Amino acid sequence: MAFRLLSQGRIHAVVCRRSFHMGRAVRAEKKLTPLTSEKLGNIKRSERFKKIDQADLDYFRSVLTETNVLHDIETDPAKSSLTQYNLDFFNLHRGASSLCLLPTKTEQVSQILKYCNEKGLAVVPQGGNTGVSGGQNPVFDEIIVNMSKMNRIRSFDDLSGIAVVDGGVVLEALDGYLADFGYTVPLDLGAKGSCQLGGNISTNAGGLRLMRFGSLHGNVLGLEVVLPDGTIIDNLSTLRKDNTGYDLKQIFIGAEGTLGLVTGVSLLTPRRPTSVNVGLVALETFEDVQKAFLMAKEDLSEILSAFEFWDHDSVGVVRKKMMPEAAFPIESKTKFYALFETQGSRLDHDQEKLDGYLSRLMEAGVASDGVIAQDAKQMNSLWSWREKIPEAITRSGTAMTYDVAMEVPLLYKMVEDCKKHYGDRGLLDTVYTNVLGFGHVGDGNLHIMANIQGFDYKTQKDMDEFVYSWAMKHKGSITAEHGVGIAKVAYMHRIKSEPQLRLMRMIKDTLDPNGIMNPYKVVPEKQQ
Amino acid sequence: MAFRLLSQGRIHAVVCRRSFHMGRAVRAEKKLTPLTSEKLGNIKRSERFKKIDQADLDYFRSVLTETNVLHDIETDPAKSSLTQYNLDFFNLHRGASSLCLLPTKTEQVSQILKYCNEKGLAVVPQGGNTGVSGGQNPVFDEIIVNMSKMNRIRSFDDLSGIAVVDGGVVLEALDGYLADFGYTVPLDLGAKGSCQLGGNISTNAGGLRLMRFGSLHGNVLGLEVVLPDGTIIDNLSTLRKDNTGYDLKQIFIGAEGTLGLVTGVSLLTPRRPTSVNVGLVALETFEDVQKAFLMAKEDLSEILSAFEFWDHDSVGVVRKKMMPEAAFPIESKTKFYALFETQGSRLDHDQEKLDGYLSRLMEAGVASDGVIAQDAKQMNSLWSWREKIPEAITRSGTAMTYDVAMEVPLLYKMVEDCKKHYGDRGLLDTVYTNVLGFGHVGDGNLHIMANIQGFDYKTQKDMDEFVYSWAMKHKGSITAEHGVGIAKVAYMHRIKSEPQLRLMRMIKDTLDPNGIMNPYKVVPEKQQ
Repeated sequence: MAFRLLSQGRIHAVVCRRSFHMGRAVRAEKKLTPLTSEKLGNIKRSERFKKIDQADLDYFRSVLTETNVLHDIETDPAKSSLTQYNLDFFNLHRGASSLCLLPTKTEQVSQILKYCNEKGLAVVPQGGNTGVSGGQNPVFDEIIVNMSKMNRIRSFDDLSGIAVVDGGVVLEALDGYLADFGYTVPLDLGAKGSCQLGGNISTNAGGLRLMRFGSLHGNVLGLEVVLPDGTIIDNLSTLRKDNTGYDLKQIFIGAEGTLGLVTGVSLLTPRRPTSVNVGLVALETFEDVQKAFLMAKEDLSEILSAFEFWDHDSVGVVRKKMMPEAAFPIESKTKFYALFETQGSRLDHDQEKLDGYLSRLMEAGVASDGVIAQDAKQMNSLWSWREKIPEAITRSGTAMTYDVAMEVPLLYKMVEDCKKHYGDRGLLDTVYTNVLGFGHVGDGNLHIMANIQGFDYKTQKDMDEFVYSWAMKHKGSITAEHGVGIAKVAYMHRIKSEPQLRLMRMIKDTLDPNGIMNPYKVVPEKQQ
Repeated sequence: MAFRLLSQGRIHAVVCRRSFHMGRAVRAEKKLTPLTSEKLGNIKRSERFKKIDQADLDYFRSVLTETNVLHDIETDPAKSSLTQYNLDFFNLHRGASSLCLLPTKTEQVSQILKYCNEKGLAVVPQGGNTGVSGGQNPVFDEIIVNMSKMNRIRSFDDLSGIAVVDGGVVLEALDGYLADFGYTVPLDLGAKGSCQLGGNISTNAGGLRLMRFGSLHGNVLGLEVVLPDGTIIDNLSTLRKDNTGYDLKQIFIGAEGTLGLVTGVSLLTPRRPTSVNVGLVALETFEDVQKAFLMAKEDLSEILSAFEFWDHDSVGVVRKKMMPEAAFPIESKTKFYALFETQGSRLDHDQEKLDGYLSRLMEAGVASDGVIAQDAKQMNSLWSWREKIPEAITRSGTAMTYDVAMEVPLLYKMVEDCKKHYGDRGLLDTVYTNVLGFGHVGDGNLHIMANIQGFDYKTQKDMDEFVYSWAMKHKGSITAEHGVGIAKVAYMHRIKSEPQLRLMRMIKDTLDPNGIMNPYKVVPEKQQ
């Protein structure tokens, strides 16, 4: 074997990869998922919440401008102007709200929440609406507070690399802004073109470069949060170290909008790499994937910025649905592919490290084929085979999407066991199609996806149960980065101990005594 | 100018630097600081707390073995066997507890806290007793729960680098253990020979390599915590990503033992560097320190692991008190010195980067002299000039020690303003001696220290007020990494907004309704 260079002249490139922007047009052509409230028959609309009336609308119009109060009582989703807010990108969760508010200032968010808290109106915060657990969509008629119009970059210090931004700033927009100063964002997701910082923080987004830059719990220096009673907690520190009392911001990172609404973010950003390399290798077994990863940790060490894998079936789905004309850059048909990326400051050093790594992979017989991108376009192209998998699945039918974490050696066994499970019952490739796996090897994080046709909730629940039980049985997490939302709240009793749930409830009840913030989600009701 | 190599043959070394172990002998020779309760006349022992009686002792002896219940009613600190627990290393804070408990198991901690909670006995958790804010020492007669005997390394996975350890494991002991597997701890402090993981986490310790590895909020994957009512929260996840509900562990990181007691830690550890370099440069101005730092970020980038500075006066104090025979490695007498360290995976690459950096420093005329360590011994030697500063000050009189964070350009201005402030009043070099500054440039973190003779509390408070007011005026933090403890609780009203304090109180009251955990500290009483 040998590593092919995709073309001559390896360049010294700063990569701006393609990212998906929500393509609403795609969805309009196909049937919408049933209402979440219909699917989840066991959750009833809480009677403690008031329904919206004219006085409420008048109040919101007095706080916001008329154009930022979207009210629509149309119940046919094909006709409603609020469908884009009620429904998620993957067509998995759908609410029935008739009101979406678009605040432009923190003070407006404060006034909205204070009013809702006093009147008993339930609220669902929403960022770029790219979440897959339904956390950002209403379950019933909760008022949607969409943050898209709070999108100012408030300040940036190019000595320290600390940015202070509104919660509604789109991740890719911030990255573009930082590029001019030689900095970049410390997290990267396929959804970067649409997702917002406030949503990233509320879901504790991990993404493609967590192995390099660490989690948001470390990179977020401060938050501005509006509590359910309208209190503004201004904790927008721009200090790298500050141990004055409890680190209050941490509670809101990953709380999925159930404790307050993130309106401002102070973020530590790393220097933008001046040297980037991307390679792709073909691997026969998942053991080889692990070996290639360990060798990358050893040889690429401090410059390794991503190590992703996917299986052969993923390639087929992406080609069929997204890039019918494109040739996969590796001819060998192996069971697995791994993409690795380096980000460094010296191109010559990075290339030497990379050459050493590739030689070792070859000599050890771990990889059977491979390519190295020669320019930014080729890097984008290699990345696209990984990043387009979720959207390709969405275009192939009803998308079943999972996000589990576990010990690295077990990662792909779940996919194999899942196929066997449904194969034994004659359901594979008939009811459950396109069962495939990909993910972040470095984080022990697998995305297992599949399609079903139509919206049979029992069929969906059956796969949920398989995947979640398997993860729990193997001491994994049933949601590595996607969060609990509405999709996994019923499993919380099985994955958390009673003391953990009690502590979660204590925090929820303390911060949101009326329970108006994103109800029905994350924190399960007490079991009787 | 030229950079001297300290000797021939730069080596490929893994550094085990010297660290300070608590030298009790030093302290026995000199006068002890007055009791904290005497100094802080405005804080009274709360009457809600019961005093220890025979029944309590009997209970604790039934839970622990006899030898792990240290009871001593001797009030003369020179004679009391508990002085080493009542007093901190810097001789700044002294309590009057007559009881120290040494649990060996999490279940014992649970039994102790449950009992104390029911009986209304106040508790102060204690690790290696290296904190400088008095967080780990009693204020009055709180029962000390010292974690030194819970020091097992529970598990380590050398594929993922995840270690699970008891809260009482000493940082350096863990690092030594990890070395055999090619891993290291993601934080490093001068106190590493004595400080314990549970204490590191409870104070959110930052230390010397935060700029490389990030904060504990990112590196701690899970905690086992005993709540004040004895409930054990087992959240010892060994997953790199897990977004199942609120990230409960975060609340306890930096809570200084006021919300619960950390008994177990799951920590992500990075690979041990195989190439380490340490250099020291002489710099004329603090502007040059900043320039040298910025150039280090550019040229050393992903391998830069520490960038420390100190002023010329620091050198004098260290030489006088700690190393009278040693020659400072740089002859030029400049106002500032900066130490930089690289940690990487390829010695040749690291040296090339380093050579490029040093050339630029020379060409730009930023540094006037410099040396590069040639072996591990020399690295230790260079580091020792930085790390021995706090102990040298402690040996020079009553140590005034501060830990502030602010914008990097302002860092040393505080020291200059402080000298001018006391100089103008004729108090510099008479009452306030050895006023000096050093710190972590990369984190915007300054340690300003000074000596006074004796224990005049008014003299101490005067400098507190100067330093803290200055930091607040310049939007800095009055405690970057040392925490609030008892030393800074009186300032919390001035540095936190009322909503922030209310939120802190809500959390405290929710988790510790009887207020038994580390009372009087961190969370200030409501102002009337």
